[in-house]
Amino acid sequence: MLYTEIPAQRPVTPLLDNIDYPKQLRQLARSQLKQVADELRQYILYAAGQSGGHFGANLGVIELTVALHYCFNTPDDRLVWDVGHQAYPHKVLTGRREQITSIRAKNGLAAFPARDESPYDTFGVGHSSTAISAALGMALARQYQQCPCDVVAVVGDGAMTAGMAFEAMNDAVAHQADMIVVLNDNDMSISCSTGGFAQHLAALWQQGHSVEIDAEGQAYVASHPAWSYNSRLHQAATDAADNLFQAIGFDYFGPFDGHDLDHLIQVFQALKKRRGPRLVHIYTTKGKGFAPAESDQIKYHAIAKIPVNATAASMPTTPSKSIPKYSDVFGQWLCDQAEQDHRLMAITPAMCEGSGMVQYAKDYPTRFFDVAIAEQHAVTLAAGMACEGLKPVVAIYSTFLQRGYDQLIHDVALQNLDVTFAIDRAGLVGEDGPTHAGAYDYAYLRTVPNMIIMAPKDENECRQMLHTAYLYPGPAAVRYPRGQGLGVAVDEKLKVLELAKAETVAEFNAQHDERISILAFGSRVAVAVQAAEQLATQLDVAVSVINMRFIKPLDQQIILDCVDQTNLFVTVEEHAVMAGAGSAVNEFMVQANILKPMVNIGLPDQFLAQASHEEMLADCGLDAIGIQQTVAATWIKVMQTV
Amino acid sequence: MLYTEIPAQRPVTPLLDNIDYPKQLRQLARSQLKQVADELRQYILYAAGQSGGHFGANLGVIELTVALHYCFNTPDDRLVWDVGHQAYPHKVLTGRREQITSIRAKNGLAAFPARDESPYDTFGVGHSSTAISAALGMALARQYQQCPCDVVAVVGDGAMTAGMAFEAMNDAVAHQADMIVVLNDNDMSISCSTGGFAQHLAALWQQGHSVEIDAEGQAYVASHPAWSYNSRLHQAATDAADNLFQAIGFDYFGPFDGHDLDHLIQVFQALKKRRGPRLVHIYTTKGKGFAPAESDQIKYHAIAKIPVNATAASMPTTPSKSIPKYSDVFGQWLCDQAEQDHRLMAITPAMCEGSGMVQYAKDYPTRFFDVAIAEQHAVTLAAGMACEGLKPVVAIYSTFLQRGYDQLIHDVALQNLDVTFAIDRAGLVGEDGPTHAGAYDYAYLRTVPNMIIMAPKDENECRQMLHTAYLYPGPAAVRYPRGQGLGVAVDEKLKVLELAKAETVAEFNAQHDERISILAFGSRVAVAVQAAEQLATQLDVAVSVINMRFIKPLDQQIILDCVDQTNLFVTVEEHAVMAGAGSAVNEFMVQANILKPMVNIGLPDQFLAQASHEEMLADCGLDAIGIQQTVAATWIKVMQTV
Repeated sequence: MLYTEIPAQRPVTPLLDNIDYPKQLRQLARSQLKQVADELRQYILYAAGQSGGHFGANLGVIELTVALHYCFNTPDDRLVWDVGHQAYPHKVLTGRREQITSIRAKNGLAAFPARDESPYDTFGVGHSSTAISAALGMALARQYQQCPCDVVAVVGDGAMTAGMAFEAMNDAVAHQADMIVVLNDNDMSISCSTGGFAQHLAALWQQGHSVEIDAEGQAYVASHPAWSYNSRLHQAATDAADNLFQAIGFDYFGPFDGHDLDHLIQVFQALKKRRGPRLVHIYTTKGKGFAPAESDQIKYHAIAKIPVNATAASMPTTPSKSIPKYSDVFGQWLCDQAEQDHRLMAITPAMCEGSGMVQYAKDYPTRFFDVAIAEQHAVTLAAGMACEGLKPVVAIYSTFLQRGYDQLIHDVALQNLDVTFAIDRAGLVGEDGPTHAGAYDYAYLRTVPNMIIMAPKDENECRQMLHTAYLYPGPAAVRYPRGQGLGVAVDEKLKVLELAKAETVAEFNAQHDERISILAFGSRVAVAVQAAEQLATQLDVAVSVINMRFIKPLDQQIILDCVDQTNLFVTVEEHAVMAGAGSAVNEFMVQANILKPMVNIGLPDQFLAQASHEEMLADCGLDAIGIQQTVAATWIKVMQTV
Repeated sequence: MLYTEIPAQRPVTPLLDNIDYPKQLRQLARSQLKQVADELRQYILYAAGQSGGHFGANLGVIELTVALHYCFNTPDDRLVWDVGHQAYPHKVLTGRREQITSIRAKNGLAAFPARDESPYDTFGVGHSSTAISAALGMALARQYQQCPCDVVAVVGDGAMTAGMAFEAMNDAVAHQADMIVVLNDNDMSISCSTGGFAQHLAALWQQGHSVEIDAEGQAYVASHPAWSYNSRLHQAATDAADNLFQAIGFDYFGPFDGHDLDHLIQVFQALKKRRGPRLVHIYTTKGKGFAPAESDQIKYHAIAKIPVNATAASMPTTPSKSIPKYSDVFGQWLCDQAEQDHRLMAITPAMCEGSGMVQYAKDYPTRFFDVAIAEQHAVTLAAGMACEGLKPVVAIYSTFLQRGYDQLIHDVALQNLDVTFAIDRAGLVGEDGPTHAGAYDYAYLRTVPNMIIMAPKDENECRQMLHTAYLYPGPAAVRYPRGQGLGVAVDEKLKVLELAKAETVAEFNAQHDERISILAFGSRVAVAVQAAEQLATQLDVAVSVINMRFIKPLDQQIILDCVDQTNLFVTVEEHAVMAGAGSAVNEFMVQANILKPMVNIGLPDQFLAQASHEEMLADCGLDAIGIQQTVAATWIKVMQTV
């Protein structure tokens, strides 16, 4: 069935309603499975409308999910979903049918598989390309324990470009590990897949060569049906003589139609009878079964909650508000800067849309480099370009830069190369949960010599900081949060900020003798001002707020200038307290032998489960009220001590 | 010529003496190049004996280096050496012939190519597998600048297993970049190469299939000569039908004998005339031309300086002293712990020898996993094993763990999995220089929730901490320095340390009213005690030294217990001051509202050029005298303020 609307009412799903766990699925007749898949698709459509969240990838793996849980004895057999944003159907079939509408909400299901949520979630995922490594670890463990089981990793073609997938395949062959990799080829990461690997998959598909499963497998074997590979890469595929997976030492099977449930079941049942590292290559369509998503796969990677009775046409994929997102501000700056300077090159590891680079990519196609999911390479590619006098900008999420950390240190900072890092999704990210939080970048960046690090108080300053970082002739990073700015006007003119120069943005009860000085970083400046206003009244003291702007180098002078008048210093940041920006202030205080009461406000030392961004900030005491409460409590304590 | 001795006297090298730069090499007749290569080999043998340092890899690339500089117009053509420990012959041919004997010494040549050392060093390297990314960046830059040149990356087979090499190849094909990758296949990383990729290379070699360079290339073309691939993998190679490089979209040429200089030159001259991403696969012998090194390639990866007139037989490859290295202590602990607990699994990313695991690998082959150079995979493989109830130990250098940082956060810590990290080469590493320093691990680890982090004061405590970390049922790290311990006795018995429990190790002038409390971490405890003794006399104050043991969780109580008696707190660590262990102490002081003078002693915010470990520590003020001086100066300042 091809659906055109997301149902606002729960669909009728009689078979699905009786599947609480996969064992009930496995008791059904083979002939009933197609109906299960159809009901599951309808239910996922409905549930996604209720919850919002990842969308297209889930519709693409309906048949695969049914086939896997039907053929393998989960959870005793280990099923590892790479990335995991396609695990909604898996969650529905494994005890979480009724909870799926709460996915990504506070106290609801996690956005990704999570070990503490279900024994069927064998491995917590979120970042791509980890599944083969994890599954290999499990397979080797079970082999060593003399308790072997089937271990299956499901990996998208987009995730295969990340080096660690290759590292894991190399190692799996070294051990001749008993494991199956399902390569779910939908010709997409979140953006379109790119590079030699994607062309190779297209070539394999075009070749239409199904490796036979031999008699031992007792399998139905056929080459794939003659539907065309609807890929822009189709024409690029010329030479299909070499198979990468076979070259590395995997047994390769496929390509198969990943929506042909009967076929999938026969393939898996045959594969189970074989040993060693096996890879089965299936082709699926992202958004399968929902017409609008099939035709615009990037738009429908994820969706927002929909209003009741919405039709496909009216369905919003993102909240429609006029305040630009930080990623939009970055995208606009990128275009403007590129127009001024032909040396600018922009690099993204498969996050063109998320990073706000669509317009830039259109306007400057020869200066746009989507390197696929390949963060390590993205950073060093930039370093190579900088060696030749170009000025690369690496647009990357805070959490993904963790993958390119060593390269940032050695290939960029150690050589003091002129690379700008535009670090998006810094701080908490809300519904995506802990795997996508950018809570550690101040810490892991500020120890690196030669780096300068900025965080803007609003979208206008973000643009100024990007420009400043770009003009700085060494490695520079601007880290900004997920989502919308504050709604301030953004100057078109590109303004340079003075290095290591903070600004006092607010002062309440200035005449008062006793004073609290709040040193605020990035996204916490505006709420610190709100808190300060309340504190000034509540405590009857002077309260000033300094927008620190630079995490490194710190504006030491502005601190020195206010030391004498300050009775309590406060640092506040949307980052772990440990080793963060406040910690940098502490270090300066120690170095300058300044002995003043201080409080460091930031994220606690724990991984935070998903909720909305605002809920998470409130829970951490990082909204205006939370800051006010912490500062007031500290003030009272300090006053008692004095 | 096959040499059997390292000459103590400078050999006679008339041709080489006239080559200050490659342009002089290129003026020679083709017929003279073999002599150049022979002279270069003799000179490298001589120079390595003078300086110590990397050895086998350099002897393996003599012909390759001559051929590359002869065929390509360096430095205008870009030559990027991966890892770079095979760049000694390159340094000799590019203006640094006379300085090569100073390599790795203080103020001498850097151990690896370095951009600030020579324009011929196009990219600073040190960590493996970055060359293709960097070269691609250069090639794309030059293409964009409409100033194309030949760009050549030389990559060892060992480095090819690291995912980022694959990421870069994928991207090079996406852009059809004009670049040449020389795959220098010596069947080795530092250890033996392992995995599907190594088998694949063996298969390609066994197949003996030289892809022809067509008429346009005007090349001498032949299949490789019939010498056997002296690899343990030879027999594993069965199926040579698929070529991985062709599959990914590279034009593949080879395999060729990498010691046949004539042949190499013809191949490169032919390859220059082609476009797009090309890979030429050559086979070389690590240690080529020096009999002892050819026959023991792992031992001769690097050598120590040799005494005058040493023969091969008497030549020490490592200093022979009786005090065990920390890596030895780790290796012994690993064996002992493995004997007690069958759940222990040990993982190394291609550092079996360096990490001290040779005996373990022999004794427990089924529980030893050398995953090749693949740090990301190493960490997640461990996570997968831990999911099945095993207790993996990841042995890794501090600087290389930076490559597995994201995996440590998400795959291990977020899931609170029971993985032990044995972090070697933490702190400064001496001659290897800044690329191999482990100066940031406290910072990048301590922000990660669920982690515990320890650093031992000596080799006996190292063993205790490894045991403690192992028994801890979550992610735990022990970081210890390069080189020898202090020479203390190591208890055979495995002792558990109490979590977050520091110890006072020294107290001088205890009766004095004024007191300096030194909170020392890891390798700096012993020298802090020396400094403390001097300070007690010099300043006439009480000085106590606390071995903090835990960077996370800190022993807060021991600090609270001494607050009242302490006039000055000192933190000292072999780690960047920024965000380091002292910074963790600062955070606690702020949190506890303790206002006491303090000084944080550690590494400065800069990349430090190579010297001996002791010289570097002294230069940073991290030896006993340096600590004494800093503390004394601070004390005087503090006393003046009071």
